[in-house]
Amino acid sequence: MVWFESLQHFISEADQVLIVSHVNPDGDAVSSTLAAGYLLKRWGKQVTMVNESPVPKKFFILEGTKEIVSTDQISGRFRHVIALDCADRERMGNIRQLLAEDAFIINIDHHATNERFGDVNIVVPDAAATVEILFDWVEQAGVSLDQRLASYLYTGLLTDTGGFRYSNTTPKVLRIAAQLVDTGIESHKIADAVLETVTIEQLQLLQKALSSLRRSDDGLVAWMSLSRKDTDAFLQSHEDLDGIVNYARNILGVDVGILFRETEDGTVKVSLRSREFVDVGKVAKAFGGGGHARAAGCTFHGSLKEAEEKMLPRLRLELECEKR
Amino acid sequence: MVWFESLQHFISEADQVLIVSHVNPDGDAVSSTLAAGYLLKRWGKQVTMVNESPVPKKFFILEGTKEIVSTDQISGRFRHVIALDCADRERMGNIRQLLAEDAFIINIDHHATNERFGDVNIVVPDAAATVEILFDWVEQAGVSLDQRLASYLYTGLLTDTGGFRYSNTTPKVLRIAAQLVDTGIESHKIADAVLETVTIEQLQLLQKALSSLRRSDDGLVAWMSLSRKDTDAFLQSHEDLDGIVNYARNILGVDVGILFRETEDGTVKVSLRSREFVDVGKVAKAFGGGGHARAAGCTFHGSLKEAEEKMLPRLRLELECEKR
Repeated sequence: MVWFESLQHFISEADQVLIVSHVNPDGDAVSSTLAAGYLLKRWGKQVTMVNESPVPKKFFILEGTKEIVSTDQISGRFRHVIALDCADRERMGNIRQLLAEDAFIINIDHHATNERFGDVNIVVPDAAATVEILFDWVEQAGVSLDQRLASYLYTGLLTDTGGFRYSNTTPKVLRIAAQLVDTGIESHKIADAVLETVTIEQLQLLQKALSSLRRSDDGLVAWMSLSRKDTDAFLQSHEDLDGIVNYARNILGVDVGILFRETEDGTVKVSLRSREFVDVGKVAKAFGGGGHARAAGCTFHGSLKEAEEKMLPRLRLELECEKR
Repeated sequence: MVWFESLQHFISEADQVLIVSHVNPDGDAVSSTLAAGYLLKRWGKQVTMVNESPVPKKFFILEGTKEIVSTDQISGRFRHVIALDCADRERMGNIRQLLAEDAFIINIDHHATNERFGDVNIVVPDAAATVEILFDWVEQAGVSLDQRLASYLYTGLLTDTGGFRYSNTTPKVLRIAAQLVDTGIESHKIADAVLETVTIEQLQLLQKALSSLRRSDDGLVAWMSLSRKDTDAFLQSHEDLDGIVNYARNILGVDVGILFRETEDGTVKVSLRSREFVDVGKVAKAFGGGGHARAAGCTFHGSLKEAEEKMLPRLRLELECEKR
């Protein structure tokens, strides 16, 4: 691997390294930060792990999460920086005041859309997660896998593949997972903490959404809505909403699941998920939004009812056209 | 493997084989039936696959599910029988009239509690699923893995490990999964169909249960209840309830999750799940029920309110004693 040498060179030059991942960190962001930090410390480096946003509680099962500090807790300027799982510079959050003028950034990421903003860019779109690239690094470097390192790498793989359920669950991912579990980590406890555990507020929000659940007569579209009152009472993080719209999409026979949500600024945010037929990215775009064929979103001005009256006929048309 | 030879001998003797799995089949039951049937047909055998209960719709993604017939759709008596994933004879359901007097039963199962009711018993408690034993058979027999066979074996592994989340997710399981995905099966579509897909009735039942969700002041116990009216309206299968009690257990900080459910016969069925501290098997036993430390159940005579008034103080006591 060509990139391996530039990485080793970077490490040999560095004494103090700043490790940063993206704002609102998910499992891969937290895990790749911890894994890279742990590796560098084993090599005798001084490491500062930073994130603009707090680490979600469900990841506290991982050792050392409290060592990831917020941007305003540190000072000084770093000359050696590793950016993990960040598709562009902005995803790192507000870290400008932490960078020396001649800061050298290694950008390690698996997003195909990565803007190659680093001085060295290790971008591997075939990797299911950034931790998969770190695993390859560990192997190349001949580092022995211990349980602590394995638990980090396992968490990133698990979360970025939706618990080995998404199409990025390649044979390679499963073989790496097997090697990680070989170390004796209690992988079921990680799965329980990071995939199964919910907050009571998430369940309360889900209950509100489910109580509004409706389905079209042909069973192809299911939708739910959350009022301003519901979200004011229960919404804590935007990740919580992702989970909810999937409940509508996952109904047997449904192709498109929708969540309509009233926001503070008098608009209605619409999340769309589809299984197979409708390209919801195209639909969202028609209303000024964006996204992919299977997951997209847009925003309407007006009430929940008005948003439904715009979106539902448009989806009906898509389905009619698909059925021709 | 010692058992391999008896299996091959059985196959060489048999022309017509009856394949049966347990009543209310889960993913491993359906998949092991289909996999064994497919293997035997490839070897030129006449195969009848039977199950007392209908195959749940979510498994229709697997080719050939419609060839699994119900007990009353077939006649004749079989001399060669393979029982899959059945811990005891009763689990096979009412198949007595299908067995010849000198019927020879091969009992293939992974439950440690298996009663060894067969003429040959291939019971492997270390296997995560019955399909794991079938995979070993396929390897030993030198059978090439095609996508159809791989999709069956993958489904059984996936469902019996809770989507690779339970503690039976061994490195071996993950390595087998990798080999199965190597064949090019769309494993994410299987995961979507068998793990993610829900019926609208399941969601309606979930909504009813969530609307009753309460949590103890210390956050360690969470409980929900379903009235007779709720279950009459929405309950279709008992599997649906398993899913629901886990929502209570999965709340951050909760150790014991409970579902109280009014039944037709004027009793209240109680499902208990725990994470770490309370042995709910012991608690259930104190009320005449049973189960394991992490999953158990019992039945009370009386109303939902009376059941709560008996169960909650008992759990409080357990937690106080654990905290000493």
